[in-house]
Amino acid sequence: MHIHVVNPNASAAMTEGIARAAEAAAPAGARVTTTGAAGGPLSIEGPVDGARAVPWMLERIEAAEARGADAPDAHVIACFDDTGLDAARCLARAPVVGIGEAAAHCATLVADRFAVVTSVPEALPVLRGNLARYGLAARCAGLRAAGVPVLDIDVGTPEALAAIRRETAAALTDDGAEAIVLGCAGMATLAADLSEEFGCPVIEGISAGLALAGALAGAGLRTSKRGAYAPPRAKAAP
Amino acid sequence: MHIHVVNPNASAAMTEGIARAAEAAAPAGARVTTTGAAGGPLSIEGPVDGARAVPWMLERIEAAEARGADAPDAHVIACFDDTGLDAARCLARAPVVGIGEAAAHCATLVADRFAVVTSVPEALPVLRGNLARYGLAARCAGLRAAGVPVLDIDVGTPEALAAIRRETAAALTDDGAEAIVLGCAGMATLAADLSEEFGCPVIEGISAGLALAGALAGAGLRTSKRGAYAPPRAKAAP
Amino acid sequence: MHIHVVNPNASAAMTEGIARAAEAAAPAGARVTTTGAAGGPLSIEGPVDGARAVPWMLERIEAAEARGADAPDAHVIACFDDTGLDAARCLARAPVVGIGEAAAHCATLVADRFAVVTSVPEALPVLRGNLARYGLAARCAGLRAAGVPVLDIDVGTPEALAAIRRETAAALTDDGAEAIVLGCAGMATLAADLSEEFGCPVIEGISAGLALAGALAGAGLRTSKRGAYAPPRAKAAP
Amino acid sequence: MHIHVVNPNASAAMTEGIARAAEAAAPAGARVTTTGAAGGPLSIEGPVDGARAVPWMLERIEAAEARGADAPDAHVIACFDDTGLDAARCLARAPVVGIGEAAAHCATLVADRFAVVTSVPEALPVLRGNLARYGLAARCAGLRAAGVPVLDIDVGTPEALAAIRRETAAALTDDGAEAIVLGCAGMATLAADLSEEFGCPVIEGISAGLALAGALAGAGLRTSKRGAYAPPRAKAAP
Amino acid sequence: MHIHVVNPNASAAMTEGIARAAEAAAPAGARVTTTGAAGGPLSIEGPVDGARAVPWMLERIEAAEARGADAPDAHVIACFDDTGLDAARCLARAPVVGIGEAAAHCATLVADRFAVVTSVPEALPVLRGNLARYGLAARCAGLRAAGVPVLDIDVGTPEALAAIRRETAAALTDDGAEAIVLGCAGMATLAADLSEEFGCPVIEGISAGLALAGALAGAGLRTSKRGAYAPPRAKAAP
Amino acid sequence: MHIHVVNPNASAAMTEGIARAAEAAAPAGARVTTTGAAGGPLSIEGPVDGARAVPWMLERIEAAEARGADAPDAHVIACFDDTGLDAARCLARAPVVGIGEAAAHCATLVADRFAVVTSVPEALPVLRGNLARYGLAARCAGLRAAGVPVLDIDVGTPEALAAIRRETAAALTDDGAEAIVLGCAGMATLAADLSEEFGCPVIEGISAGLALAGALAGAGLRTSKRGAYAPPRAKAAP
Repeated sequence: MHIHVVNPNASAAMTEGIARAAEAAAPAGARVTTTGAAGGPLSIEGPVDGARAVPWMLERIEAAEARGADAPDAHVIACFDDTGLDAARCLARAPVVGIGEAAAHCATLVADRFAVVTSVPEALPVLRGNLARYGLAARCAGLRAAGVPVLDIDVGTPEALAAIRRETAAALTDDGAEAIVLGCAGMATLAADLSEEFGCPVIEGISAGLALAGALAGAGLRTSKRGAYAPPRAKAAP
Repeated sequence: MHIHVVNPNASAAMTEGIARAAEAAAPAGARVTTTGAAGGPLSIEGPVDGARAVPWMLERIEAAEARGADAPDAHVIACFDDTGLDAARCLARAPVVGIGEAAAHCATLVADRFAVVTSVPEALPVLRGNLARYGLAARCAGLRAAGVPVLDIDVGTPEALAAIRRETAAALTDDGAEAIVLGCAGMATLAADLSEEFGCPVIEGISAGLALAGALAGAGLRTSKRGAYAPPRAKAAP
Repeated sequence: MHIHVVNPNASAAMTEGIARAAEAAAPAGARVTTTGAAGGPLSIEGPVDGARAVPWMLERIEAAEARGADAPDAHVIACFDDTGLDAARCLARAPVVGIGEAAAHCATLVADRFAVVTSVPEALPVLRGNLARYGLAARCAGLRAAGVPVLDIDVGTPEALAAIRRETAAALTDDGAEAIVLGCAGMATLAADLSEEFGCPVIEGISAGLALAGALAGAGLRTSKRGAYAPPRAKAAP
Repeated sequence: MHIHVVNPNASAAMTEGIARAAEAAAPAGARVTTTGAAGGPLSIEGPVDGARAVPWMLERIEAAEARGADAPDAHVIACFDDTGLDAARCLARAPVVGIGEAAAHCATLVADRFAVVTSVPEALPVLRGNLARYGLAARCAGLRAAGVPVLDIDVGTPEALAAIRRETAAALTDDGAEAIVLGCAGMATLAADLSEEFGCPVIEGISAGLALAGALAGAGLRTSKRGAYAPPRAKAAP
Repeated sequence: MHIHVVNPNASAAMTEGIARAAEAAAPAGARVTTTGAAGGPLSIEGPVDGARAVPWMLERIEAAEARGADAPDAHVIACFDDTGLDAARCLARAPVVGIGEAAAHCATLVADRFAVVTSVPEALPVLRGNLARYGLAARCAGLRAAGVPVLDIDVGTPEALAAIRRETAAALTDDGAEAIVLGCAGMATLAADLSEEFGCPVIEGISAGLALAGALAGAGLRTSKRGAYAPPRAKAAP
Repeated sequence: MHIHVVNPNASAAMTEGIARAAEAAAPAGARVTTTGAAGGPLSIEGPVDGARAVPWMLERIEAAEARGADAPDAHVIACFDDTGLDAARCLARAPVVGIGEAAAHCATLVADRFAVVTSVPEALPVLRGNLARYGLAARCAGLRAAGVPVLDIDVGTPEALAAIRRETAAALTDDGAEAIVLGCAGMATLAADLSEEFGCPVIEGISAGLALAGALAGAGLRTSKRGAYAPPRAKAAP
């Protein structure tokens, strides 16, 4: 099984980190290739960045699909916003999974209600809209931002860790969440420790995305080409 | 008042047609400028075309906003899919209205339930998703495709007209719709005749979009810069 | 263009104030006439007042519609409860817009989520029910009452202003609202100052109502006479 | 126990019929008094009739509540539109039940999904809106109009009966309904025969309304005076 | 009229208490018989207890239905979780009412929004799920646990009473509830005092359940045998 | 990785068939053990059968969890009704997946809207309720019964196959489904052929269930023990 992970952010450092995490999380028997957007914004922090990143990411999906016998059995979009998910599905025969939706679906299978803890408040509206579209909003007990920039999370400053733990505790106690979804790729390495400290599932997207991509591919499923995800029509040259 | 209409499709002929329609529909006292995407797909027929068109459209929004004293008081996105609406709002201080949402909002103000009649079935999933997000899905009695390509609608073949009238009649009789939204820019010129023939409001997007853009600008409103539509953060060079 | 504003409250002083505000907010090229209910309660503060006011308001709608060439191109119901909106639409060929729904629709076009700040808690259940019916409840981040009587707001006591500013701040900070709808006609004059102070759209109903009424009339739309807003059947005398 | 049934229609003949049906349906140990609106439209067929009838009906509620020791233990509004229900609750200490809501609540207690069969299509929008507000819309498998005027139903013409049976059959077979709510007072006498013929619950509003009014009164419940149903504030004279 | 109350908990002491309360709450003219599960868990505190109790409760429903002329006219399931409600309806010709759903339905007839106050937080997820299924979740302003074990409530310790009153006050003030549903059988005896103290309806399930069961039986209704509540098919022996 | 599949139906033949299918669908590196309910109904066809089967199934879950080092890493409930899912989660530390929910979640990852095709109409209400609870109802374009008994499906009579193909075609054409979920274990062997014939994803529960169970276990997730799925409290002996 071959799983293609695409990072829609143009940062090569971020792509390397994602590659390492994806390989560590690969399902048994799966081979992972990771690519990053060749252009577009270094990091995706809202709808404008997302819009500018998607065409570059779609190139990676198309290129991977064109590899013939080496085409992937599944794609994972490694951005918690699930940036460009619908367009990617139109271009892919293989299943495409966003790490945001993967984490949310997994959460509803191990808990009745979950909360999302992410980095900054600007990230919340996109996540809220996505959950509504997936149908999982009613299962979400709270959307919380730790109020710390992504960089501080990556570095792991004590203040950042304290803020994430504070919001995790509040989600469990005040919102009634039974599981936590970490809504920021940089938090992935914290999942195991937080799960042990708080005694509940703490789910990060790369693991969940690789797991669901492997599940769909393993079950022999491919993206439907009827309706919403039909391939784009050919265009005349401009 | 200055209203900027942007066509995210790269077809110059389409942009000219939209410019004429927009000028005819301009609110009293409003001046209209129309621009088209400089690159991207000639026509938007699904999520992939949309994703590839948005960066070009955002350039037009940014350029218009940068015109200082001549910056627009409102923007209209002239594509029934409301392509790139969120990202455009992040870049604009002035209000931004998509013609699809404009038609749907207007419909709910003159009828309890409306139906959308569009060109091809592939268009339906995006429209369905948009209505759900706007909160107007429960007011939509039906989404119908006439099953005729956009080109045939533009040319006005008898078969295309017959199919549009058949779906309009079915929407009123079978779905219980009380007003019709024409979900395809090429149908705009049919609105008046259909309204008279069927004795009910028939709403097309360019008129509705210009009207709502003028209303928001006339009321002195600007896009909120808090939360969902905050401007994008500056990025380091790649 | 002729826009008819009807005040369902029987207070002549309130009608005069509404007339002034409506004329100030009239769209370019629009003429405004304002009428008030000839009987019924002086002010509408709940369902019983509303029920008793509606027949008087409907007389004004009917009289305006009967003016032949001088019949209005649109009606505005100048009560934030949107009192009698459905019945008014049944009697009018022209579009009818309630100022409560107008403000809410406008808010969703310039912000992802808005909050309503109104006078007294008794007003909240009607507003909550209206938003649910319009489909805009999911876009409403909070409904807040300042806890000050309408009269104190009209007079502009310091305590009233402080309470309104306190709830506005809380709506933005605690509820995550991105725009504010002022849910009480007496707050209309505060909109501009609050918008500047809090740096976000602050929307009051008279402006929004006039703007949307002008938009619908300008786009040539009329109330559907199919289904929900069909004219009442003639009755035998009792 | 004293149950007050109020007919918001001004037709004395209709009030007499309702009084007979209500007495026949009275819970064990309950005494029924029936009153009719002293003015307003003879019959309620849409929002305008409803708006004009409500003030007259509220007089009856107020008068009944003012009877001291003889004040009712519950009120029933004998119109399937549940006309003026909120306003009536504001004026009453005793519980108030509309026959439309009563039938729908009962249906959800004996079937997973029900359908409504009513007289004319114009009646459907109000019923649809009411069910949405009560929260029972998702339990409603279909809203069907037999397409026969109320008068023909009252007289019991063969065509009317055939149309009602045809829609009942379609609701069970095509919509998957498991119980039928008869959405028109004139159909009440048909309930028992239809239930036997189709082998499923067929619920009419007068019986359901009397039953629920008796249940609430028997359980010692009274309408809450907090929030939505607070009594109206006193007004200065105009 | 004969109403059968079944206690799915195996505790004989609890069954006796329920029998007393049910007889006190019986509608005029109704005879009550109360049975308890012959096996299964002594008390139902979550899904596992519920699952283990249901087969025993179903035996009681079947036995009661088999009594021929003495078969009940309605059944009441005396557990606030409405344990086994669907299965019980499949076995019964007579209507079946759960005390949890009964209290919630009654609450929506005397208040716009209600809150539930129950014993321990573990009880909340089942209640939340039930309200969603009944369609009444949008009418529920809050679900609160007093944090006191059922036994302490039964004994009536001062701490338990204080906690219940604290949550009741918070539901009215902070959640905007207009009526209170007591979500624990042991709180039933507190309803009258709390209602007087807080000046609003306080609804407990045994009274509400008996009242609605009597209402349905009095209106001659029986459980639909079409669709969801069809009787189980006969099985071959294993 | 060890996946435990439990058949809540008491039929040994069915358990054997499920064991074969589960082993064929096992994720790479996973070992499968399959158990069947030791008592209860031979087949589950509605809520009563389900209620009677669950205690026996829970014994199997408990026994598997008690196996110490050989305890499963995940459980799969091999009944499309997801019978006893909540109770099973309360007893298990490992994740528990129902095959009905697994198929529906997978469908939403490869198509915008799916339809369910099952055996008999009696099966539809439970499936409809489950989808609503999971939040996936809005993604379901249709629920269809082929109208053929499970036995005929198992034997593969030509009439049964024709009926299944007819409903599949109708779901795609009339309902606008983009993928098909086969809502009956006996249809599992048809999935590959139907997928090829209709050119879209056709998903059966055993494959989907094994795949998701493997995904959750592979990602190191366990069922939350906070809130809804807390273990049952110990009880005194009766």
